[in-house]
Amino acid sequence: MSHSSHSSPLYAAIDLGSNSFHMLVVRHINGSIQTMAKIKRKVRLAAGLDSEMALSQEAMQRGWDCLSLFAERLQDIPQQNIRIVGTATLRTATNADVFLKHANEILGYPINVIVGEEEAATIYKGVAHTSGGSGRRLVVDIGGASTELIIGEGFEPKALTSLKMGCVTWLERHFSNRQLTGANFDNAIEGAKQILAPVIEQYQDIGWDVCVGASGTVQALQEIMLTQGMDEVITLAKLKRLQKQAMQADHLEELEIDGLTLERALVFPSGLSILIAIFEVFGIESMTLAGGALREGMVYDMVEELQHDDICARTIASVQSRYQLDVAYGEQVANTAQQLLEGCSEQQWLNEHNGALLLKTAAKLHEIGLTIDFKKAGEHSAYLLQNLDLPGYTRAQKQLLAEVLRRYKDHLTQLPAQHALSSTSASRMLRLLRLAVLITHRRQHELQPHVSVSCRNDALILDIDKTWLTTNPLSAAELEIESHRQSDIGWSLEINAI
Amino acid sequence: MSHSSHSSPLYAAIDLGSNSFHMLVVRHINGSIQTMAKIKRKVRLAAGLDSEMALSQEAMQRGWDCLSLFAERLQDIPQQNIRIVGTATLRTATNADVFLKHANEILGYPINVIVGEEEAATIYKGVAHTSGGSGRRLVVDIGGASTELIIGEGFEPKALTSLKMGCVTWLERHFSNRQLTGANFDNAIEGAKQILAPVIEQYQDIGWDVCVGASGTVQALQEIMLTQGMDEVITLAKLKRLQKQAMQADHLEELEIDGLTLERALVFPSGLSILIAIFEVFGIESMTLAGGALREGMVYDMVEELQHDDICARTIASVQSRYQLDVAYGEQVANTAQQLLEGCSEQQWLNEHNGALLLKTAAKLHEIGLTIDFKKAGEHSAYLLQNLDLPGYTRAQKQLLAEVLRRYKDHLTQLPAQHALSSTSASRMLRLLRLAVLITHRRQHELQPHVSVSCRNDALILDIDKTWLTTNPLSAAELEIESHRQSDIGWSLEINAI
Repeated sequence: MSHSSHSSPLYAAIDLGSNSFHMLVVRHINGSIQTMAKIKRKVRLAAGLDSEMALSQEAMQRGWDCLSLFAERLQDIPQQNIRIVGTATLRTATNADVFLKHANEILGYPINVIVGEEEAATIYKGVAHTSGGSGRRLVVDIGGASTELIIGEGFEPKALTSLKMGCVTWLERHFSNRQLTGANFDNAIEGAKQILAPVIEQYQDIGWDVCVGASGTVQALQEIMLTQGMDEVITLAKLKRLQKQAMQADHLEELEIDGLTLERALVFPSGLSILIAIFEVFGIESMTLAGGALREGMVYDMVEELQHDDICARTIASVQSRYQLDVAYGEQVANTAQQLLEGCSEQQWLNEHNGALLLKTAAKLHEIGLTIDFKKAGEHSAYLLQNLDLPGYTRAQKQLLAEVLRRYKDHLTQLPAQHALSSTSASRMLRLLRLAVLITHRRQHELQPHVSVSCRNDALILDIDKTWLTTNPLSAAELEIESHRQSDIGWSLEINAI
Repeated sequence: MSHSSHSSPLYAAIDLGSNSFHMLVVRHINGSIQTMAKIKRKVRLAAGLDSEMALSQEAMQRGWDCLSLFAERLQDIPQQNIRIVGTATLRTATNADVFLKHANEILGYPINVIVGEEEAATIYKGVAHTSGGSGRRLVVDIGGASTELIIGEGFEPKALTSLKMGCVTWLERHFSNRQLTGANFDNAIEGAKQILAPVIEQYQDIGWDVCVGASGTVQALQEIMLTQGMDEVITLAKLKRLQKQAMQADHLEELEIDGLTLERALVFPSGLSILIAIFEVFGIESMTLAGGALREGMVYDMVEELQHDDICARTIASVQSRYQLDVAYGEQVANTAQQLLEGCSEQQWLNEHNGALLLKTAAKLHEIGLTIDFKKAGEHSAYLLQNLDLPGYTRAQKQLLAEVLRRYKDHLTQLPAQHALSSTSASRMLRLLRLAVLITHRRQHELQPHVSVSCRNDALILDIDKTWLTTNPLSAAELEIESHRQSDIGWSLEINAI
């Protein structure tokens, strides 16, 4: 009963964006950030800029009304745990000081209008703290009135750019007649390319391995694609397909796309145009959604304990701690799985980049369902993996981990279709996990049998110490059943006592 | 990252019963018992007794084979954390010493053949530690060769009896021709009544408030009733209905009852007969299933930290600790909900026995879903409440708590049918919880508004401090929405600023 968290402090990050104002309230629990509240109002500040770049009285009032709601919640949060930033529109508006003066009074805390490079750096921090993977990444964040482009590696940004275009300003500039014509799209895309032109060479010189999209525009795209049954990876072909779908409506008001929310519809064509331009000028092949951006960067900035090099390792450790898993046993299962995998190294059994990492993660977290109940433990593990926020893992990876843990013991069925690994690798990962769990049943390294493994394509041969099988009749019986279970669904498994 | 449980020790309880041998492996985590493994073999030792009450060689061999499986797993458990007991058949068999000598060798640990009263006392401990509620309880445990009857209050047994009849011995005695005739049932029921006769008066003199059934026979009955769409409460009428269903088959081998597992079928008619006899001689109106019995009693006996008077309070504290909930805030919401309830005391808003306890439980655990994810937090809370082992709460209560927590904020819908409270009380509980959550949004007692509540039947009137509403516009807006949400589904809620 030692571990009540009644004193775990709250943190708040407020972002006065050009399209929406957001407030994020979190607490920090055992190495992870737990969201306590999200409040959002679509203030559309950027739409209130007139031709002289001054904010209209109405737009300012919308902003102030929103801030008085935020102010109530802010009172309960320690002063040093609050960050409030303003972005593009507040950088640009000629009368921003009028807005900010009253806004500061309402909030009772200073608003920090950050320059574009600082916004880009904070976005990168939010991405780096919530996304795994190695290599150099290109981060794209399309906001209401600015678009940030960052190249970074690990936690280090290598190039930071903030460009003056966003989904609200592009809506007003290129879709002002609210018509979804080819001409409007062409102009919007062409206009974006002109803005991008000055940075193309620098970014291509630095180069990148993967591309990640942050914030609302990319999130809306991913939701549409998932609703329409596509996988989560954004490609130029899919963006073009969505442009065609959009052009089936004449007017913005008639726009209907499966999975597009009403809230997002107005700025969808403009955001899409900018993203198409980015894909084309940089020759991007595919993009996935980041787990966080500006607000998450602000939060991770405040929580000093969370400076950690390996996001996936931090996530595993945090989940093990929060769910009080047996860490030593998780390590034992992971090592055993890794040893089995190495036995198949000549065949490159899990040859994809993330195969070994996912196997290790599954091994370390497989008992999580037991913390809910012994009955249906696999189902509970799957539920948790599917729904927990796991910084460092993509949606597809979480989905695969869930399906693997659903099957980590007892009854075995084929894995469903998924997008994290090839189906061959996914099945192999599951087979190795199940064997590692069976072999480590005694939960102590010294009591584990000597095994060696070899494989021919998908046929596995496990040689296991004869004496151990004799002195461990329960495990021997379970291994025999396992060889039938795997073989019955077409995964040949031969177990030899040697 | 403080809290790895890699050293939390394992405990094992083994019960060499007359029908099955069971092994239960658990660990103790933050005030709760987490099941790590359950191994069971249907040894049917009692069926191996010959007319001279000697165990056959075959029956003994089945037992020894099973114990060598258990022995493997026992090696990993600290010696002082192991309890092994033998029950009725090993008390009775004339050659039990032969069986026990070799069994001790196989296990490497002594087997303690306990007398009937000790078995009854341990069963009672298992029931008391896993079942909530106040008042005096009659506990009925029908085993393979003995039936235990206990009356107790809290943790104190007041009467302990072990009778020499069980579902295996009654099968051999009254259904030896394997026919499901009225005559066989009559004989089985009549025979049970004769065995019960000597204790009826003593038990009726002591008296009881509630009746609880433990172990396999009652569990099988509950599964059948739930499969057939009945509620979980066992009554004589339902037992008679099941007897009729059973008699539609001529032979035991042809028995088909929805929800009855093959494993349990053989001893179902005999166990049913004994239970009918018990209902009739004691005039029992209704019985629910206990959360634990003999093996759980053995475990709670070993884990000294778990001696606690109030099972429900222990469960709440354990869940709060394991899920790192905000304990102070839970207390604040519970107190506020209680205060609202008291405002309606003249109308006896939750007049059922457990209404206030369930409201308190819901208030203290309502944020549990946030530990999985902010998105769909209510769904996650419901999933956890449905599936967590919650000693002290019945299945129906867990189900209601889950449905209430599914709706603790935002969108509101009617509760589904349930069996824990009247539907009026259940709705009222949900309404009070939602209001308590809204009023305590600021998470500090000092920042809570002064409110007073009154009601006319199901119409609620909430008077709330005007100044507070002005200075808390977000909460004021949410309360206004709440009054529409409740009123829209027919629960009149008037909110007045005073």
